[in-house]
Amino acid sequence: MCVACDHTIHRAQHHFGWNRDFAPAIRCQPGSTIHFECLDSSGGQLGSDATLETLKTLDFGKINPVTGPVYVEGAEPGDALKVTIRSFEPSGYGWTANIPGFGLLADQFLEPALHVWTYDPSTMAPAMYGPGGRVPLKPFTGTIGVAPAEAGLHSVVPPRRVGGNLDIRDVSIGTTIYLPIEVAGALLSIGDTHAAQGDGEVCGTAIESRMNVVAEIDLVKDARLETPRFTTSGPVTRHLDGAGYEVTTGIGPDLMTAVRESVMRMIDLLGKEHGMAPVDAYMLCSVCGDLRISEVVDAPNWVVSFYFPRIVFA
Amino acid sequence: MCVACDHTIHRAQHHFGWNRDFAPAIRCQPGSTIHFECLDSSGGQLGSDATLETLKTLDFGKINPVTGPVYVEGAEPGDALKVTIRSFEPSGYGWTANIPGFGLLADQFLEPALHVWTYDPSTMAPAMYGPGGRVPLKPFTGTIGVAPAEAGLHSVVPPRRVGGNLDIRDVSIGTTIYLPIEVAGALLSIGDTHAAQGDGEVCGTAIESRMNVVAEIDLVKDARLETPRFTTSGPVTRHLDGAGYEVTTGIGPDLMTAVRESVMRMIDLLGKEHGMAPVDAYMLCSVCGDLRISEVVDAPNWVVSFYFPRIVFA
Repeated sequence: MCVACDHTIHRAQHHFGWNRDFAPAIRCQPGSTIHFECLDSSGGQLGSDATLETLKTLDFGKINPVTGPVYVEGAEPGDALKVTIRSFEPSGYGWTANIPGFGLLADQFLEPALHVWTYDPSTMAPAMYGPGGRVPLKPFTGTIGVAPAEAGLHSVVPPRRVGGNLDIRDVSIGTTIYLPIEVAGALLSIGDTHAAQGDGEVCGTAIESRMNVVAEIDLVKDARLETPRFTTSGPVTRHLDGAGYEVTTGIGPDLMTAVRESVMRMIDLLGKEHGMAPVDAYMLCSVCGDLRISEVVDAPNWVVSFYFPRIVFA
Repeated sequence: MCVACDHTIHRAQHHFGWNRDFAPAIRCQPGSTIHFECLDSSGGQLGSDATLETLKTLDFGKINPVTGPVYVEGAEPGDALKVTIRSFEPSGYGWTANIPGFGLLADQFLEPALHVWTYDPSTMAPAMYGPGGRVPLKPFTGTIGVAPAEAGLHSVVPPRRVGGNLDIRDVSIGTTIYLPIEVAGALLSIGDTHAAQGDGEVCGTAIESRMNVVAEIDLVKDARLETPRFTTSGPVTRHLDGAGYEVTTGIGPDLMTAVRESVMRMIDLLGKEHGMAPVDAYMLCSVCGDLRISEVVDAPNWVVSFYFPRIVFA
């Protein structure tokens, strides 16, 4: 329940994929504050008692439900939808998985793996990972988007110009995101809530965690935005950066190859320094390590750096 | 002068490109602290009185001199050279340029452009950019590397496995970088000092600024490092992040295309919000904006985000 909200959209009002012809769950005026009850990206299939067996029998037809859509009165193609994230009500548990065929290093990590997390939803204190790791939390909406103009059902997996499965770690409390509107009413939906993720989401999953989201919706008429943009209200990495970083690099003429190499080197380093199994290091990198592009101009070789926050083992 | 140093390498002892057969400027023991007098990346051609005409007549044969090389006693192929950056003595001026044919958006920015910076080398207070911009400074070594095993002269422009023109913004005070050694003695050289740069160095130049560097050199025997790695002693973006960020995105199946789009959108936004000419926005992005990879797993579309620190206009 949200006392300051104009509307609540219940968990049952979710959909799979994007479609301009989905019936609105609600209609609202610009300026409204909405309470979205969101499911996790497994749609409740992986609960706090999930095991590797549960993961192996996952129904991929029920992946990544989003709550909505919200029809915003007056919204027209060419406008931007302005969404400010006000708060989260986290559930206190979550999961991270290596799902075969999915993830940056899917060719190297062929077996399914699962880590189930518990955390304190009131304090949001760092969550334990194995005996020594403590991962700082920062909840955000993995999927936030409006309906594409093109008719028909569109997969929820790839993000698009209209947003969707952006998995941008900083769409968190206080952030305002602007999404290009392509259909009348915009048709906003939100889901795929995460308790923590690094830039890149390298193993393909974050700390996937059911939570409710309160967001304020507004319109910018005739914004003519090309792609999503957002404004953060303050620093974005202070929960991670206090003890500095261990950083590995990938160097070469192909960005994706350099990205992969930087992450592989960090998996090696975490194995060497903390005795972690490669797949455990890979999943840990996904929830707290950051992919940055250090330089992309010294032809023909670019430098990609993977930043792992030392606070996890401090 | 550096009272705590074991050696000083004077500015005149510089070289262009990398070559395993260059004679050492000095020989030192592991554990030594060395004072490197470095030139800026123009080798002094662009001083505090530089103009667009100076830029147009730049001699590219004298680009990116590095000070050294240092022969480290006992260093052998397979070891790693451990270099800890202790301090900088900045000169107080620098330059940023759009050099035709060079930079992420070289196809769009065809004309040369130059900005000459002055800053207070004692306080390192943010440096002015036009009437409204103030860029936080954080000095670092743009080029730090050892000699490649392959005989002959190698261009200084591309970074390699042995380091070189890495342009990693966080190789700053307190950072320890580890470089794979390929030749006896390692042959370390340092140069291309920068007063500030964002992740990506998108226009191809940073705040290029002559300064001296004090670094401590050590060896890790038989480290078998594949690529450079480094450890930062603390947070890396607190000089930038206090007021939050404006962020633009590029979304699509090719990382380089998404990188370019995210930067183009920020140039548009800075033009719209601050009335900046595109080339001025491009150069400003290069010295303080950060390229991050938000997700690289939601096939077929990746999300690249360009983070511009709002403190510049706060």
